[in-house]
Amino acid sequence: MPVRYREIAGGSLERLAALSDGIFAVAMTLLVLGLSVKTASELHLPSTLSSRKLWDHVLWPLWPHLVTYLMSFLTLGVFWAGQQTQLHHMRGTNRDLSWIHLVFLLCVSLMPFSTMLVADYITSPLAIVVYWLNIALLGAVLFASQRYAGRAGLFKDEVTAEVRMAMRRRIVTYQALYAVGALLSVVSTYASIGFIVAVQLNAAITPRIWPLDRF
Amino acid sequence: MPVRYREIAGGSLERLAALSDGIFAVAMTLLVLGLSVKTASELHLPSTLSSRKLWDHVLWPLWPHLVTYLMSFLTLGVFWAGQQTQLHHMRGTNRDLSWIHLVFLLCVSLMPFSTMLVADYITSPLAIVVYWLNIALLGAVLFASQRYAGRAGLFKDEVTAEVRMAMRRRIVTYQALYAVGALLSVVSTYASIGFIVAVQLNAAITPRIWPLDRF
Amino acid sequence: MPVRYREIAGGSLERLAALSDGIFAVAMTLLVLGLSVKTASELHLPSTLSSRKLWDHVLWPLWPHLVTYLMSFLTLGVFWAGQQTQLHHMRGTNRDLSWIHLVFLLCVSLMPFSTMLVADYITSPLAIVVYWLNIALLGAVLFASQRYAGRAGLFKDEVTAEVRMAMRRRIVTYQALYAVGALLSVVSTYASIGFIVAVQLNAAITPRIWPLDRF
Amino acid sequence: MPVRYREIAGGSLERLAALSDGIFAVAMTLLVLGLSVKTASELHLPSTLSSRKLWDHVLWPLWPHLVTYLMSFLTLGVFWAGQQTQLHHMRGTNRDLSWIHLVFLLCVSLMPFSTMLVADYITSPLAIVVYWLNIALLGAVLFASQRYAGRAGLFKDEVTAEVRMAMRRRIVTYQALYAVGALLSVVSTYASIGFIVAVQLNAAITPRIWPLDRF
Repeated sequence: MPVRYREIAGGSLERLAALSDGIFAVAMTLLVLGLSVKTASELHLPSTLSSRKLWDHVLWPLWPHLVTYLMSFLTLGVFWAGQQTQLHHMRGTNRDLSWIHLVFLLCVSLMPFSTMLVADYITSPLAIVVYWLNIALLGAVLFASQRYAGRAGLFKDEVTAEVRMAMRRRIVTYQALYAVGALLSVVSTYASIGFIVAVQLNAAITPRIWPLDRF
Repeated sequence: MPVRYREIAGGSLERLAALSDGIFAVAMTLLVLGLSVKTASELHLPSTLSSRKLWDHVLWPLWPHLVTYLMSFLTLGVFWAGQQTQLHHMRGTNRDLSWIHLVFLLCVSLMPFSTMLVADYITSPLAIVVYWLNIALLGAVLFASQRYAGRAGLFKDEVTAEVRMAMRRRIVTYQALYAVGALLSVVSTYASIGFIVAVQLNAAITPRIWPLDRF
Repeated sequence: MPVRYREIAGGSLERLAALSDGIFAVAMTLLVLGLSVKTASELHLPSTLSSRKLWDHVLWPLWPHLVTYLMSFLTLGVFWAGQQTQLHHMRGTNRDLSWIHLVFLLCVSLMPFSTMLVADYITSPLAIVVYWLNIALLGAVLFASQRYAGRAGLFKDEVTAEVRMAMRRRIVTYQALYAVGALLSVVSTYASIGFIVAVQLNAAITPRIWPLDRF
Repeated sequence: MPVRYREIAGGSLERLAALSDGIFAVAMTLLVLGLSVKTASELHLPSTLSSRKLWDHVLWPLWPHLVTYLMSFLTLGVFWAGQQTQLHHMRGTNRDLSWIHLVFLLCVSLMPFSTMLVADYITSPLAIVVYWLNIALLGAVLFASQRYAGRAGLFKDEVTAEVRMAMRRRIVTYQALYAVGALLSVVSTYASIGFIVAVQLNAAITPRIWPLDRF
């Protein structure tokens, strides 16, 4: 009886982690390409600018790109930490879980695109919705990975049902907050961006005096 | 008697895997550069666009790039999983096998080029043929690696002839399907792309109710 | 009683190091995009240029980009070595330390931007100040990481107070020197760049006949 | 007595290898940016091209970029294998050796620039000379690393003087051949490129019927 490819394909958690770190690293660094410096000749200005003019014509116009850059670096940081936490609790992978994470990495690699869209059209609610869809997909795939790993018995033995519940609660809570952020774009896209950045700072810092600390 | 360089050159399977993960990660993320956002000034439009105009002028025209982006991410995912499976069964490498995999990585790094070609000339059968050549080369080199590793005794002891046969059968089956996809470009390039994406989704998901499941 | 996400989030020093190496690698290599070769058609010149003309029109005008390229590669090398030394002395990480290092990596990924700014506006003191702010942030975050790791007990047992003091003294000394370099831009931006490169060469080579050797 | 920073700085061979793999991976993949696909609108052609026109206007004009792409991928492959072989024989690193390899990686990251220069000015001997300087620097730094590691006792105990001699002979032989390749640019730059590619293919394949096999 022939061996099925499915049974041998596989399964190196180390290589999945290495590919993930590589894709996160490239995506995080490609964001900087949005911060492109306009040269003096592109701006039809003399090549020796006063500091005042450099600020007015080159640096200041970059603020939408800088704000979205920070927002997306935080987004990727949040999801990198989330994926790392999940994989850290697993004892191995299989080909199905690897493919779930390849879809996750596809969404990671789309982030520079969504970021550029918001930066170039910062007053457009549609750009915010595209950005939010990207975040929502990241969350959904990470949630699916958690469910699948649970059912397939890929978590380490010491990972209790409470720990797994805490991971899922984390994803659901933050996704609810991101959805609120996206809805705020009806009022103002700046309100959306401010809210999303605040949520991410909360995820990064988790102040201990906070009701959200439980999540 | 002097030592020959060939005898000492070598041979770290970990570094070969790390270089591979790096090149796959960069190639997968560079694909996103095809999804470049046209700015309002490039489009001779006011910087504050309605959602309707943003969709019509910026997002909708990107669909050939989005489709080819997804196709190529899947292609690279399939070959990453294939290479990982193969290396996972080896107990070491030597300089010849390392060079075979460097040629494999050369083909990986060409993928953003082939993708851009199909996206920019999505109705051209020649673009599909170039894309298919890229996939065919990836398959041929992976097949050569499998044969070489077998002859050079680089597989782990527990890797039976059946397992090795399953790996080879996998490559041959899928390459036959990709060739069918390329041939479909005579009818329509959209048929080609649809077929190739379907083959790759099958490789990723492998539904269990399927005759192809055996491969 | 439910498990708090904070208690399980975490904590893989290997993945933090892998992400760091990836981001440093991409940032160091993206610097080369500043050295873009102008094509003959962009320069309105015949495609077959004499060596003299190639030098005058293509290579020589790149010198501000080459100088800043070398400076930034050294900067990133200095901070890569500094971060590596610090992590090498730790026995693990936690989510707070991981976030401190994500902020550090954010500053790393900004370096190609700061470099391009100095290269395009090499006579502007404001460009030097932005560059210096980038370096100052890298130093401040690395210092914060050192303090936090000390307080949180993340250093290995064999890391004495003297060793930790040596790490902090190193950061403070070099940051003082970088500040001097930034101040020199009042006199001349070339003096700034020369001084910063000299400081970095000193960090790389540390000649043993030097009073600074103690730091 | 205070601890000197030099004594604690350091020394992780794993992280040096990881940074190297990252920089090689990015540099090898960035080469593909030279193969940029001209869009139909850039070429002032209708968006639906015949295969004939696609070949004439888009694919065929890329041949200088394709040839130099292959040459540089081989160059980077040769030096990746060379560095890997060297590090594979070491039992550790220190800060001086790390800095030697950072200079080596600086030369690696310059390779996309040198490649673009040759591709854009393929008939220019000066472009070939710049390319050769890049290769010569790579060889010189790798040689220096070998000498330094020998003097500093960083090689593993089982690495005999003959093995180390074989490594050095390898570098010197190939550098002599590359110099011949550069000199051929006086006759024809195509002869240079053909010769360098032949040398690299020899390094990759090392046919056993060959006098060079001893090196």
